[in-house]
Amino acid sequence: MGFLQRLSAAWRRNDSLLCVGLDPEPERIPRHLRDRSDAIFQFCSRIVDTTADLVCAFKPQIAHFAANRAEAQLEDLIAHIHRRHPDIPVILDAKRGDIGSTASHYMHEAFDRYGADAVTLNPYLGGDALEPFLERRERGVILLCRTSNPGARDVQDLPVEGRPLYLHIAEQACRRWNRHGNCALVVGATYPDELARVRGTVGSMPLLVPGIGAQGGDIEAVVRNGCDDHQEGLIISSSRAVLYASDGEDFAAAARTIALRTREAINAARREC
Amino acid sequence: MGFLQRLSAAWRRNDSLLCVGLDPEPERIPRHLRDRSDAIFQFCSRIVDTTADLVCAFKPQIAHFAANRAEAQLEDLIAHIHRRHPDIPVILDAKRGDIGSTASHYMHEAFDRYGADAVTLNPYLGGDALEPFLERRERGVILLCRTSNPGARDVQDLPVEGRPLYLHIAEQACRRWNRHGNCALVVGATYPDELARVRGTVGSMPLLVPGIGAQGGDIEAVVRNGCDDHQEGLIISSSRAVLYASDGEDFAAAARTIALRTREAINAARREC
Repeated sequence: MGFLQRLSAAWRRNDSLLCVGLDPEPERIPRHLRDRSDAIFQFCSRIVDTTADLVCAFKPQIAHFAANRAEAQLEDLIAHIHRRHPDIPVILDAKRGDIGSTASHYMHEAFDRYGADAVTLNPYLGGDALEPFLERRERGVILLCRTSNPGARDVQDLPVEGRPLYLHIAEQACRRWNRHGNCALVVGATYPDELARVRGTVGSMPLLVPGIGAQGGDIEAVVRNGCDDHQEGLIISSSRAVLYASDGEDFAAAARTIALRTREAINAARREC
Repeated sequence: MGFLQRLSAAWRRNDSLLCVGLDPEPERIPRHLRDRSDAIFQFCSRIVDTTADLVCAFKPQIAHFAANRAEAQLEDLIAHIHRRHPDIPVILDAKRGDIGSTASHYMHEAFDRYGADAVTLNPYLGGDALEPFLERRERGVILLCRTSNPGARDVQDLPVEGRPLYLHIAEQACRRWNRHGNCALVVGATYPDELARVRGTVGSMPLLVPGIGAQGGDIEAVVRNGCDDHQEGLIISSSRAVLYASDGEDFAAAARTIALRTREAINAARREC
């Protein structure tokens, strides 16, 4: 089964569009785990185990591991998810982008070394830079389109033939890069109008939407503007609000509470659609 | 001394605009080294030691290490360059790009974990994504502008208010992002006309130019179109042609021969300017 099929199945099985982002900050890991040599793995895997029935995907963010020399813990974490929760796809948030043989090395890093089901990529280098990833048909390729930060407008909103650049990215993703049906796009929750314009351009292509929770995106607006015709089509990612719901020994239970509440808020908004 | 000062000093001391790119491919490492557990380090450090008096920078490409679980060898390699060749700046070719606290983690990965003097970044996410890097004033921030691959045109050449997108990136780099004087841009050798347009936009800002050698860029056109008013301003990168000049035990000497010849071809073209 390809990434998008696995994602669809998880949407339905867990009745959830929620994705938990795994962005471990060593100094925010609860004190009773912090001194362990595998603190990052221990922290993330417990969050995973208490939220796996509430999500459609997990999304580890690679810089949080790389800055802490924790590549081995990232390998272990993804292997843990595959072993214990084989129905939940893993998106490696890496935002890679390079050309030629280097793109192939990044592809092997994401899909073979780490065993991710999908990876986020930056489209600035154009279609040939995406090819090695697109050719892995059973894996997902999630392209940055309109990101959730204020500076997104510096480049992504520049007007190209009367429309912002990010819509040209969305259109190329649909018309050219999605020939194996394994593409999705990143659109930030903090810009619901832009989300609606992307949805209007890409049909039912899935959209990965970060920016709810700590970044302040409005769940109702995201669902209303981002869902496809089946009230699906979204991977709504929350990281810090879930991971750091408590800094005590109850952190995993607290994370579950927030994940439950977020899934319910998303589903309430879906019922309004 | 900041990155750009160190780069300028190396241009002059070694009379060289040549940068050797360190893109190790395990299956192309000479047979007598290939089975060592630190084969990548052994291979790259010998190339470094035989070419250090001929270059203005070394540029390790991180995907080639990451795909082979060789992060520790990359750390060792950069430490080796700093220790043995302290006057040669190291550019980590990583093309990172992310927002908020994640950008800070990538910044720590490049500058603190690996100790790079400069890093390549992707500008698609806009100015705030560059901030944590720009604030490290003594380090260099080298932004993708017009890359050397055919697909570069898919996005970078899109017309924005009558000019291609890549020139808007060049202009924002000059006007907004270079306030600490630590920016440079990537422009591929394979598109000399675009190189001339970028040079015309950015004054004396250094340009990192990959694509000579294996990718076929023309040295004379690069120098003519890319140099600043002092016949400097370029970091002309060659990887495969130098690294794989021989697959035998003489690989390091063969790499030196190619590096010497390339430096001389560049300098001959500079004298014509």
